[in-house]
Amino acid sequence: MLENDTLLRALLRQPTPHTPIWLMRQAGRYLPEYAATRARAGSFLALAKSPALATEVTLQPLERFPLDAAILFSDILTIPDAMGLGLYFSEGEGPRFERPLRDEAAIRALAAPDPASELKYVLDAVAQIRAALAGRVPLIGFSGSPFTLACYMVEGGGSDDFRLAKSMLYGRPELFHRILAVNAQAVADYLNAQIAAGAQAVMIFDTWGGMLAEAAYHEFSLAYLKRVVGRLVRSRDGARVPSIVFTKGGGLWLEAIADCGCDAVGVDWTIDIGAARRRVGDRVALQGNLDPVVLFSPPDVIRREASRVLESFGPGAGHVFNLGHGISQFTPPEHVAALVEHVRSASRTLHA
Amino acid sequence: MLENDTLLRALLRQPTPHTPIWLMRQAGRYLPEYAATRARAGSFLALAKSPALATEVTLQPLERFPLDAAILFSDILTIPDAMGLGLYFSEGEGPRFERPLRDEAAIRALAAPDPASELKYVLDAVAQIRAALAGRVPLIGFSGSPFTLACYMVEGGGSDDFRLAKSMLYGRPELFHRILAVNAQAVADYLNAQIAAGAQAVMIFDTWGGMLAEAAYHEFSLAYLKRVVGRLVRSRDGARVPSIVFTKGGGLWLEAIADCGCDAVGVDWTIDIGAARRRVGDRVALQGNLDPVVLFSPPDVIRREASRVLESFGPGAGHVFNLGHGISQFTPPEHVAALVEHVRSASRTLHA
Repeated sequence: MLENDTLLRALLRQPTPHTPIWLMRQAGRYLPEYAATRARAGSFLALAKSPALATEVTLQPLERFPLDAAILFSDILTIPDAMGLGLYFSEGEGPRFERPLRDEAAIRALAAPDPASELKYVLDAVAQIRAALAGRVPLIGFSGSPFTLACYMVEGGGSDDFRLAKSMLYGRPELFHRILAVNAQAVADYLNAQIAAGAQAVMIFDTWGGMLAEAAYHEFSLAYLKRVVGRLVRSRDGARVPSIVFTKGGGLWLEAIADCGCDAVGVDWTIDIGAARRRVGDRVALQGNLDPVVLFSPPDVIRREASRVLESFGPGAGHVFNLGHGISQFTPPEHVAALVEHVRSASRTLHA
Repeated sequence: MLENDTLLRALLRQPTPHTPIWLMRQAGRYLPEYAATRARAGSFLALAKSPALATEVTLQPLERFPLDAAILFSDILTIPDAMGLGLYFSEGEGPRFERPLRDEAAIRALAAPDPASELKYVLDAVAQIRAALAGRVPLIGFSGSPFTLACYMVEGGGSDDFRLAKSMLYGRPELFHRILAVNAQAVADYLNAQIAAGAQAVMIFDTWGGMLAEAAYHEFSLAYLKRVVGRLVRSRDGARVPSIVFTKGGGLWLEAIADCGCDAVGVDWTIDIGAARRRVGDRVALQGNLDPVVLFSPPDVIRREASRVLESFGPGAGHVFNLGHGISQFTPPEHVAALVEHVRSASRTLHA
């Protein structure tokens, strides 16, 4: 039994006394206690691969702020790492792969990893976090989307335009589809294993889908999001396990995303969330959508802008408050406190 | 009299025998002859500030490809440079300002430059390019948008999130509005001076408007785009001077942009141009929208994707073919040749 089930209820468009709030990357570099744990771990990857330390940092933001959910501390690239691509982090450059997918033989040989053996450290972290949470709030599991994983796998790391990945997509679509098909299987297996280990909701991060042309988005990202969502376990121990799909920059395709079978759609800050609600109707809940940069403003501005999001969504069920993207590492933690407290109190008034 | 006026006609939604094509940043680093001229100039800024060399590089792509327009070779940050902010380019970091706008006194002291004296090198370039073109195709003048200029002026250079600029926008909106009001005056004066010097169409690049929340976009970018467009000279020597507004990432706000008073709206590649056409109706022409990364594919793929854009827009007037963003410096020039030739021939069939 959960002490606070507002997140799960809101994701299923059931009434809640306040609008639940959590923040993408809420366990992370803006918190000094996170920096301390990471220093003890030695590296980001060592931290992410240690279930005990991942549990520690997952709970840190909950000790500071009355957040309505915990999210597994991990990386979106654990799957390709388990596929043998060799994930590493180079200072200032973000994630990279030692062996990016560049030739047909490697693509033909690609296979979905078995989470129970090859991603055991993640499942162990999920189980330990669930135990440590002891029912305070639900735990969200997550994965990168098939397309977003493929971008990194082909490109070998982050990029302004993912030129290599998109060149394969345009020039050798059958090869790119082969990667996506394996990724979709891998993501579904991985999220189902997280659910079996204790995740009470799951989120798929399609970080790079928004840089595609519309037709390409449908063919190379949304089709595989749909495939993943269609394979997800829908309930565990009698409780529904809601799914959230978030394509950053996907505002133009909102109706199509809302039809992918998920329970909730994440929206970035470029769309007015009230307009988004009118477009999706009662098909899905919405999660978002404060501009993360607002958190650099003084608390009165943060409260004003958060109220704008709450009021734009309006009264009624189906809103999970969040940022429109991950929280910046430079965010002052006391500003997060002001945001979380305000969303809690202002949304109580809105729902009363 | 123009030998080829297809661009101007299409921008005014008048019939043309083929769909005109030009490419954002068509005079630039992907061309070896550009690299040679730049090497002679010594630096990008020296090149941009020399009317003779700017004329030379503006005409280079027209020597290679049967493009339907020339666009002034210049930088989007000439205005803040003329305001005294001290534009410079640091290797690998892009444009930067020596004296970004960070304090109230500097913002209060900000004034629109007089183009005739402070941006004379640009107007001289416009006149020289017009003379060199000798009526082959029209010349497009351009400027950054008030908001995009303000982003760089406050931030001091490019940024992933323009944290400083957006913090001022949220926290000190009256200061940010003061910058925007001066910028709107400066951009209108600058574009009108380019028109007087010979520009036959003008384009406003709102490169960063798409990273704003919807309400902020309307208040801090679109309102000032409207102000600029409202002040533009509409015709010269009896010929209409069409205006193009391009907010990258502005697909969600297309109807509002189409109502800003401009003749044409630029669209990036994330929106289907046929859907965009249905949304704007007969209010404006559309310019776009091939994904620039398509140009890394083999010619047959380039032709397929270009046809997809042409066919999505469909028959009838009001389409200017372009990329959805500036051409990459790594693009093979022979792929540009394949694109331009294909758009010319395939669109002739479409319009026949």
